[in-house]
Amino acid sequence: MGVYPDALENCIQKLATFPGIGAKSATRMALHLLRQPEDVVREMAKAMVEVKTMVRLCSRCFNFAEADLCSICSNSKRDRDVVCVVENVGDLMALESASIFYGVYHVLQGSITPLAGIGPDDLRIKELFSRIRDNNIKEIVLALNPSAEGETTASYLLSRLEPMDVEITMISYGIPMGGDIKYMDMQTLKKAMMTRRKP
Amino acid sequence: MGVYPDALENCIQKLATFPGIGAKSATRMALHLLRQPEDVVREMAKAMVEVKTMVRLCSRCFNFAEADLCSICSNSKRDRDVVCVVENVGDLMALESASIFYGVYHVLQGSITPLAGIGPDDLRIKELFSRIRDNNIKEIVLALNPSAEGETTASYLLSRLEPMDVEITMISYGIPMGGDIKYMDMQTLKKAMMTRRKP
Repeated sequence: MGVYPDALENCIQKLATFPGIGAKSATRMALHLLRQPEDVVREMAKAMVEVKTMVRLCSRCFNFAEADLCSICSNSKRDRDVVCVVENVGDLMALESASIFYGVYHVLQGSITPLAGIGPDDLRIKELFSRIRDNNIKEIVLALNPSAEGETTASYLLSRLEPMDVEITMISYGIPMGGDIKYMDMQTLKKAMMTRRKP
Repeated sequence: MGVYPDALENCIQKLATFPGIGAKSATRMALHLLRQPEDVVREMAKAMVEVKTMVRLCSRCFNFAEADLCSICSNSKRDRDVVCVVENVGDLMALESASIFYGVYHVLQGSITPLAGIGPDDLRIKELFSRIRDNNIKEIVLALNPSAEGETTASYLLSRLEPMDVEITMISYGIPMGGDIKYMDMQTLKKAMMTRRKP
């Protein structure tokens, strides 16, 4: 039982289920809604529902799509021989925003996380293997996060991809651009030094 | 003319010449000194003077030293065939704290910064070249910062080191450990993707 009318209380509780949104932010958001014209709120609510009803996963790469294929997979200008493997759509979006990769993607929809009971079969890994087998894929670029889960996933993929007839590369991990060696954490310094290479 | 006695005002002004210390912080520091016993303040002042009188630069690598050679150059367990080139002592300290590099260092004492009028001759670069020529150095590891100045310095060194009979490597630049691709800046994503390599 809160101090607010039930409907408001309920809205606050619902909004507070967003990740990173606590009771205070949710209250602020709900009160903001109260101050908007009804049609504005309806539009927002509609957009939220449409996200669920209209967005699905690309049948090829598991990126978000509004048709069978996502906008990247259906773009004939992208190089379909080079597939960048990412954990989730957020990572794909970040790489896309850097306008630097002209191949296509494969979104695993997560990473191997034994503690949470997420194994290879829970991810889009077998779909990746069949994509490689069935298409003329020349290079797989692993762009997994430098976390325990990302590294577990990378090791697993490496061990399974090795026997396949495809070139495997990984994005680089090390000192981020504009970073200062003085202020880097030890894990990053270790990685940067251990993976040093010819210029 | 400040509101404080001249001596205090003077101390504040002196402390405010530290980088990153403004008038407010300097005042807080000076008032803190006022509250300490005299011997404590004398000890601190002595330590500050001793920094100047007792610390000099290692004659070989230009790290800080209290003798002719620094503690790293005079450590017989370090591999003197591998020399890691850094811009400043802070970078050296960071790499040392990661306990991952067992060679020795060469501190350039800055980076090539044309806008500030700092060219190759203002850094310990010719000393690096003579070290390579006069000793049996097998590998030069460039550990320069991913900034405009660091990259300028790296290019310059690369062009000059190329003809010498020494292996050249660079530490890695890319996504820092524990970083999340989703939240990385574009320059780092570009670097990570462009320098992708076989695992």
